[in-house]
Amino acid sequence: MALIVQKYGGTSMGSIDRIKNVAKRVKRWHDHGHQVVVVVSAMSGETNRLIDLAQQISKQPDPREYDQMVSTGEQVSISLLAMAIKELGVGARSFTGRQIAIHTDSTHNKARIEKIDVQRVQQQLDAGNVVVVAGFQGVNSEDDITTLGRGGSDTTGVAMAAALGADECQIYTDVDGVYTTDPRVTAKARKLSKITFEEMLEMASLGSKVLQIRSVEFAGKYQVPLRVLSSFDEGKDGSFDDDFKNNVGTLITIDEGDDMEQPVISGIAFNRDEAKIVVRGVPDHPGIASAILTPISNANIEIDMILQNLSTNGTTDFSFTVNRTEFDRALDILNNEVKDDINAKEIHSDSNVVKVSLVGVGMRSHAGVASTMFQVLAENNINIQMISTSEIKISVLIKEQYLEKAVKSLHTAFGLDREDGESQVAGL
Amino acid sequence: MALIVQKYGGTSMGSIDRIKNVAKRVKRWHDHGHQVVVVVSAMSGETNRLIDLAQQISKQPDPREYDQMVSTGEQVSISLLAMAIKELGVGARSFTGRQIAIHTDSTHNKARIEKIDVQRVQQQLDAGNVVVVAGFQGVNSEDDITTLGRGGSDTTGVAMAAALGADECQIYTDVDGVYTTDPRVTAKARKLSKITFEEMLEMASLGSKVLQIRSVEFAGKYQVPLRVLSSFDEGKDGSFDDDFKNNVGTLITIDEGDDMEQPVISGIAFNRDEAKIVVRGVPDHPGIASAILTPISNANIEIDMILQNLSTNGTTDFSFTVNRTEFDRALDILNNEVKDDINAKEIHSDSNVVKVSLVGVGMRSHAGVASTMFQVLAENNINIQMISTSEIKISVLIKEQYLEKAVKSLHTAFGLDREDGESQVAGL
Repeated sequence: MALIVQKYGGTSMGSIDRIKNVAKRVKRWHDHGHQVVVVVSAMSGETNRLIDLAQQISKQPDPREYDQMVSTGEQVSISLLAMAIKELGVGARSFTGRQIAIHTDSTHNKARIEKIDVQRVQQQLDAGNVVVVAGFQGVNSEDDITTLGRGGSDTTGVAMAAALGADECQIYTDVDGVYTTDPRVTAKARKLSKITFEEMLEMASLGSKVLQIRSVEFAGKYQVPLRVLSSFDEGKDGSFDDDFKNNVGTLITIDEGDDMEQPVISGIAFNRDEAKIVVRGVPDHPGIASAILTPISNANIEIDMILQNLSTNGTTDFSFTVNRTEFDRALDILNNEVKDDINAKEIHSDSNVVKVSLVGVGMRSHAGVASTMFQVLAENNINIQMISTSEIKISVLIKEQYLEKAVKSLHTAFGLDREDGESQVAGL
Repeated sequence: MALIVQKYGGTSMGSIDRIKNVAKRVKRWHDHGHQVVVVVSAMSGETNRLIDLAQQISKQPDPREYDQMVSTGEQVSISLLAMAIKELGVGARSFTGRQIAIHTDSTHNKARIEKIDVQRVQQQLDAGNVVVVAGFQGVNSEDDITTLGRGGSDTTGVAMAAALGADECQIYTDVDGVYTTDPRVTAKARKLSKITFEEMLEMASLGSKVLQIRSVEFAGKYQVPLRVLSSFDEGKDGSFDDDFKNNVGTLITIDEGDDMEQPVISGIAFNRDEAKIVVRGVPDHPGIASAILTPISNANIEIDMILQNLSTNGTTDFSFTVNRTEFDRALDILNNEVKDDINAKEIHSDSNVVKVSLVGVGMRSHAGVASTMFQVLAENNINIQMISTSEIKISVLIKEQYLEKAVKSLHTAFGLDREDGESQVAGL
């Protein structure tokens, strides 16, 4: 018997029929003797409906009232799911974030979980009931409702699993696992049966939107085994084989280090949201990087890659990338507040760039990854504009038009292609 | 400066524009230096939308989960109204029934209020803020959300007013007050500026659906002055005259007894939902009434008027009325379970009957009310089938076809007609 936390997102809860399907799945786990805690999001569309109502009243709705309102989306879906589970003859009880209680700080709209009381949940589990928990929400010390921000239900799932010491936290979603890269870019993308927390963090932060980054951090910190699997995939979870853990979805777990067959590279992530800014001909003296970047970060614009050229004749070029949505704002700041101050020659910019990254804990022990990557790109005549590295990741900035070519050739070169060459992702 | 509790129903909160109008009205009261607590219902249609979702899952949804779900309707509307009030520059804070806290018993779907903590509300009022409270809901001792049943927001309003010692509880609705009778039956119906709790209770229980009966009982018990007024009537409340209390809507209050001009009759109520059942030729011995009525009330069918004829030849006829929706069920019980047991000759029934009632605390001191009533009906050739009386009410059962004639002639005979003869109710 295991204690399992399952999390279902808005799409899985998107209609009464889908809610009934979730209830059936929960019942199957319960019938096999497992204790089940289910964390759910609002029915898809509901959160947007509520936000739209608020925005008809105020462009900047009061954050406390906003949380009070938007948290009702999950409150409705937990009740409906508990009803549906009961309708199948299984005991079930729903709890809001406050009823649990999931204590958070007071940062409305993006609160952080501080503590979870599991007593009431544990009592219900011990009594043989399924517990249904509202994702995305909590309560602060003033008894006001808080929300964790978009995608916060994943975090609730992982936090509940950590607090309960669950055997596994299962994130049901509309994909059946984590892939070596986006199967829409190459049909040879392969589903990973396992990935480490660190790798998943890099993949997620680079735009693989399967899981919210904070939930992966949380799972890593508390070593909660996390599994991504499809809520539309009937039957696979019906077998409950002893080797379930090796068969279904993708398990995100700690790096056990003893896996001889661990690949050098686990996946290739990419990010289309990059935009590059080059400040040309700036005097090369200490403090110049700070003079350029401080006004940008003061405006809450996040900077990603940074490159400073070698100096020639006492001047240098300074390049960095920002998110495309903040590109115009960053350019304005440079042109109006920075350029003259630092005596720069010109500001050059390019929003037709993408970042492609190799991710894998295996690269720690393989020095040749970078050189292989650069060689593959060179063979394909793809020019590298910027490079950044971490212990388990190498990223390059290239022209957007080469994205597909780069991903496909790297995917093959690093042995990630699936053998039959066919995409196994449903619906793609 | 007064402490005012205002209650707005689902229609008054039916759209974003209407919510903004409520916010403006609240601001006007606040600007005049009053402390304002606003109790609101869910936006019209929202509760039904939620109930429909639940019923797609279960014909008998779990009552706890049902309350957890349906209470979100008010939670959304309090947040939206608080946002709208803040948008006008007035401090506002919303509270769910649980946040107040409004403690109730555990009878889900029709809980009763046991205790209200006003500390948090009082703090907000003292800080100059408007307090927006979710109607219809509370919390039980297990921290589960309860609801008070349909129309429960009126009760919340009155209970908040009682707990806070408010100067007045204003119920904003889609009519502008309580009328001497339904203006759709006679255009001469007149708006009452004042009515006693007892009279209002009789009027309400007889089908004047302006206020929920429980809220009137509650207001009477705690002597909370209650005012019914229109939420669509702009301006009238803008003057804030000293004599506001005599000008707007209908004030429901205690019988001060010193009002020389108090009319004998305050209003004429009627109920179209009656159905009559006559058990003919039953042996007239003790226990016969109980033998007939106990099976009916055991089936949770409410009995209204009861009449037992004088005995002739040792047998008698026994008549009573029930609500039309329960008419068939009552007949079934009598025919299948009672008739043979008590040796009755036949069961006769008639669902084309209505009850017309005169209501007025003044009739206590006027013995002639009944005889005047019977005389007026006789002059109009309206046969009286049954009679029942209370201290402040006389009801007669008549054929449905005579309803309008009876109400009009009694309305005139008891001096209730408005002088210009024109209906003053907007939209009728």
